[in-house]
This record gives sequence, structure tokens and C-alpha cells, in this order.
Amino acid sequence: MATGATPYPILAVLGPARASAEECAVAERVGAAAAAAGWVVLTGGGPGVMEAASRGAVAAGGLSVGILPNAAAAPPYPNPWVMIPIFTGAGSARNAFNVLSARLCVAVGGGPGTLSEIALALKAGVPVWCWRSWRIEPSPDSSPPLPRVFASVEELLAELHRHLASDSTSNIERLND
Amino acid sequence: MATGATPYPILAVLGPARASAEECAVAERVGAAAAAAGWVVLTGGGPGVMEAASRGAVAAGGLSVGILPNAAAAPPYPNPWVMIPIFTGAGSARNAFNVLSARLCVAVGGGPGTLSEIALALKAGVPVWCWRSWRIEPSPDSSPPLPRVFASVEELLAELHRHLASDSTSNIERLND
Amino acid sequence: MATGATPYPILAVLGPARASAEECAVAERVGAAAAAAGWVVLTGGGPGVMEAASRGAVAAGGLSVGILPNAAAAPPYPNPWVMIPIFTGAGSARNAFNVLSARLCVAVGGGPGTLSEIALALKAGVPVWCWRSWRIEPSPDSSPPLPRVFASVEELLAELHRHLASDSTSNIERLND
Amino acid sequence: MATGATPYPILAVLGPARASAEECAVAERVGAAAAAAGWVVLTGGGPGVMEAASRGAVAAGGLSVGILPNAAAAPPYPNPWVMIPIFTGAGSARNAFNVLSARLCVAVGGGPGTLSEIALALKAGVPVWCWRSWRIEPSPDSSPPLPRVFASVEELLAELHRHLASDSTSNIERLND
Repeated sequence: MATGATPYPILAVLGPARASAEECAVAERVGAAAAAAGWVVLTGGGPGVMEAASRGAVAAGGLSVGILPNAAAAPPYPNPWVMIPIFTGAGSARNAFNVLSARLCVAVGGGPGTLSEIALALKAGVPVWCWRSWRIEPSPDSSPPLPRVFASVEELLAELHRHLASDSTSNIERLND
Repeated sequence: MATGATPYPILAVLGPARASAEECAVAERVGAAAAAAGWVVLTGGGPGVMEAASRGAVAAGGLSVGILPNAAAAPPYPNPWVMIPIFTGAGSARNAFNVLSARLCVAVGGGPGTLSEIALALKAGVPVWCWRSWRIEPSPDSSPPLPRVFASVEELLAELHRHLASDSTSNIERLND
Repeated sequence: MATGATPYPILAVLGPARASAEECAVAERVGAAAAAAGWVVLTGGGPGVMEAASRGAVAAGGLSVGILPNAAAAPPYPNPWVMIPIFTGAGSARNAFNVLSARLCVAVGGGPGTLSEIALALKAGVPVWCWRSWRIEPSPDSSPPLPRVFASVEELLAELHRHLASDSTSNIERLND
Repeated sequence: MATGATPYPILAVLGPARASAEECAVAERVGAAAAAAGWVVLTGGGPGVMEAASRGAVAAGGLSVGILPNAAAAPPYPNPWVMIPIFTGAGSARNAFNVLSARLCVAVGGGPGTLSEIALALKAGVPVWCWRSWRIEPSPDSSPPLPRVFASVEELLAELHRHLASDSTSNIERLND
């Protein structure tokens, strides 16, 4: 008799509601790569980078979760590619929830909300990979963990593929298999 | 080209970490019924009623989400049947999140935490069905919506089957199909 | 040299935004009694019972704190008698915060939001006194702490005066002394 | 007859639990300056910079509020200089609440938690002044508001005095007058 289910590994994609076409294209590839490797893609559930990552996940046959700041649907939250919308009504406090469930966060672009999520991930000890996102330098008296910064999309995706494949704790088959 | 994914309908099962064998058996049947109808089963992710409902969902080939009060795994949170653990670190504030995402809440047994979730669901306009849970009467000056109380398990499950089947907004196939 | 400040004891007044004149009158007396005894009065910061309790506290020379569901002022939140508005943007999740800081909660009237606060206070082990509020009975399998129910205003206020005066941990002078 | 109370203006002091002696000395002066001008000093309620700012406020005859991540007292939260402890149990989600209530945030030093608060303040449109804190540069596609960075303590305090005095919305007398 089974004694439990194996939880899905979760990749959080962080990024702004207003994003450039290039940022969205990268986010979509990140979401697709995660889903293809059997990971669930989690975002803040809104437009822009969040929508692109979710669309990538769904197109690759995966599962997209959105952790929403609002208490009920109010366009553009959730975006049309969120399969499991988790409404919190918690406003920006939900930024903390976005990162705690993730094994890895990938930030693509970003305004202040994304910066807060990068910081909250670092605080929680969740690794953060950045492409075209904030450049940050800690205070002189502090030496916290810092994000890993990728200069090229190709390098980001190559590393991501390696990382997703090597994470041995995931034994979940792809959803649509 | 697709313009979006259809979100899963979500059933939240509310109930205590310390539950009787009978309460757990009922919660497991509720979780299984929801999963069999293509709904995602959402709980607070802990032991007792939450674990039983999640186990029922997984056994029926469905998907279980747990919205956890803690910021990282700390037994007995999440229970072994949570497939998508959402860590919040928000303590009892997460009780509000448990109900906002649900189309229907079913409360089985319950201590004060369950009562708070019943109340928060009523406040949010989410219907609540109760079996062996709190009996509540509002203040003389207030006439809020109240839970629907079921005296028998059979009646609860029969109504639940009807309700789950008739919810036409769900067109998602079962996960393992 | 001083080694610290003594924290104010906090009384939370719980109750609905839409309240009867009698409920508001009672809440105002509760707020005034607390302030007169050197306690800070904490509410959800809105209209109705929350406003009346805050007004009572201010009129008695005390201090009123409001824990607001919104992220910024949006009438009727905060009400005009909140001296220290704490904006959370957390929606109904802030109901959990309203009770955790209190040594005693007094519920006057109430809809579902008040019920959730009563339940969250019971869960946190904070004593709750009720007047004209919810009548609740736990599930057959559970025996949680329950609120203390007062049938008469006079009895409520007499007990409150006794309780506020006997709480020896407060040595703060009234604010306007 | 009075129609309301004037809310206190609130200064939030952001900074790490582990802080250098110099950072603490600066935070204490910031807290004292705010209190002397009739502002309430709000912090996350912990040790380090938070404690120093609270101590400065109390020593100057003012009021200190702490928004705590925990649900109940657990040393070193709250620090001994918090006069109004607001327990949230919300973990890092409380970082969002720390900044929403403030008219001005001053960050002194800082690890990832402080960075998240700086970011959340920028997102909410609350001005942030930094001394020895994070240096941040937004993504190439984004131009969010940025903190004001002070190189010298003297300049920070001079500007702070000017700002606190010129904020005409505060007509509250100092607490101990």
C-alpha cells in the first residue's frame, strides 16, 4: 500500500507584469523547460513575464500555479494560463509565498515587486537565477547570499536544463503522459 | 492557437489536525469524490482530516494542493499526500487563503481553526457544507449566509456527487487519463 | 540606565462594520474603559463597532490602533478615530493579526468576519468575551476553549473593569497624563 | 464635538537583526529624531537596527511600534523597546506590512530582509532613504522609483530633521507633553 505521493518540484518564475517581448519569450522558454522536466511552474499569476511562463508550461504539457494578490478574479489576475489559481487577497504579502515553495527561482526582468521576491528568496535560502533583472550589491556590513546572474539566454537555458534534469528528488511523470 | 488553459475547479476540505477515525474516513471519501470528478482538492496540508482528504484525492488519480502555515517542511506539515505544497509561513493567516480559491468548502469535524475557515468562507461568499462540524448562530443584529449542515454522510456524499458533476465550468480531464 | 520599555496591554474589540446603535454604544464604552485603564484599544480599523471602540478610546485619552485590510487609506478604512493605522493590504488574512496581539478580545455583535476573529482568538489561546455576538457549539469530537458569553451589558462592563484593573503587568500611565 | 483623531505620522526604520555598532548608533539617532518630531517609529520589532531605532524613540519620549513575524513573544522578538507589539505570525510576509503604514522609510545597513522591505516600499510608492544599505540597479527594461542614497550620516540626519519638521499633516503633540 502506498504511503504517500511525491510532491512536484516547483520552479518559480519571477518577473514584472509589464515586460518586453524578449523578456516574455525567455520566460516562456523557462516555463516550457521546467514543465518538460516534470516541474510545476509557479508564478504570481499576473500578465507579462508571469503569463508567458505559465503559457510555456501549459504548452509543454505541464502544470501552472498562480499565487494571486487578489481575493477573487480581477483581470489581468489570473492570466489565462494559470491552471491552479490560489487566491490570497494578501496583496504584496503574497510575494513572500511565491518563493517559499520553490526549489529554484528564475527572475526575468523586473520592477520593485520582482526585487522583493528576489530578496525574499535569498532570505529563505532558495537559489535565484537572474536574467536581465536587478543588479544588487549588499551593504558593506553584510554578506548575504546573492543571485546568480546570467548574461546570455543560451547559458541560462543550458544551465536550467542541466539543473532540472539532475534534480533526483522528482520522480513524477509528465502530466499528460 | 489556444488562448488559455481552463483552471481546475477547486474543492477545499476543512477540518482538524486531530480527527476521529470516522471523520478521516468521511474526508477521504470527499477527497476521492472530488478528484474523480476532475476537481483539485485543496487543504491546509496537515494531518487528520487534511491528510485523509488528500489521500483520497491521490488514490482517485487526482491532484492535492496543501496551503501550509509554515515556511518550510516541518512534520506533520505537509502530510505525505500533498502533491503541490504551497508554503506561506503565514501561520493562521493562511486560513484565509484556504477558502478563497475554492468553489465549495466541505468541513468535517473541527476545532477553532476550522471554525475560522468556515467563517472566512462565508465572508467571501464561498458555499460551505458541514458534517459533524460547528453549529453556529449569528448575532441577533446580523443575518449572514450560513453553512449547509448535513446530518448523514450518505446525504453529504450524494449531494456532493450531484454538485461536482453539474459544475459545467470544468472541462478538464482527469489527470491520469 | 533603562533596559526597556513596558509594552502596553492591548484590548482588541471585534465587531462588524454594519452595527446597530446599541452595539456601537456598547463598543464605545468598552473602548473607553480600556483606555481609562491604560490599555491600548486595537480594532480592524473600519466603521461600525470598530469605529465606536476607537472613538471611546480616544475620548478617554487613550490610544487606538487599527489593523487595516487595505494597503492604503480607502474610506471607510481607516475610520476617523484610528490614531495608529497599520496598513497590511492582506485582506481577510489580517483578521488573524487582530487577535494575536491582544490580551483580551471583546466581541460585540458580528457577521462572518467577527466569527473568524473569535475563532482565531480561541485558536491562539486569547480569551474572548462576547456580547450579542455568535453562539457557537463545537463539533462532537472536539472540545476547544469557548468564548465567555455575557447576557447583560452591565455584567460585561463590570467584569471588564475588574479585569483591566487587576492586570498587574501594565504600569504605563495614561497617555495624556 | 470632535469628529476624529489625527493619525500619527509613521517613520519606518528598516535594517538587519545583526548590525554593526555604527549602524545601531545611526538607527538610534534616526528613531530619536522621529520621536522628537512627534512621529511614531515603526520597525520589524527585532534586535539590531530595529531595537536601536525603538530605543531611540522611547528615550526621546516617543512611541515605538513593532510588527512582528511571530505569533507570540519569542526572544529576541519583540525587542525590549517595543511599546506596541503587533504580532502577525505571518513570517516574512510581514515585511510588506512594515512599509505600507510609513510616510517615510529609512534603511540602515541590511541583509535580504531589508532589501525586500526597500523593494516593497518602492512598489507601494513610499519614499526610502538609505545609509550603508543595498546598492541596487533596476533591469534594463524597467525604470522604477529608486531609494535616495546618503553617503554621510550628518547629511541623512539633517535632511531627516528638515523633512520631519516640514510634514504639515502632523499636529500631534509629543506624547509626554
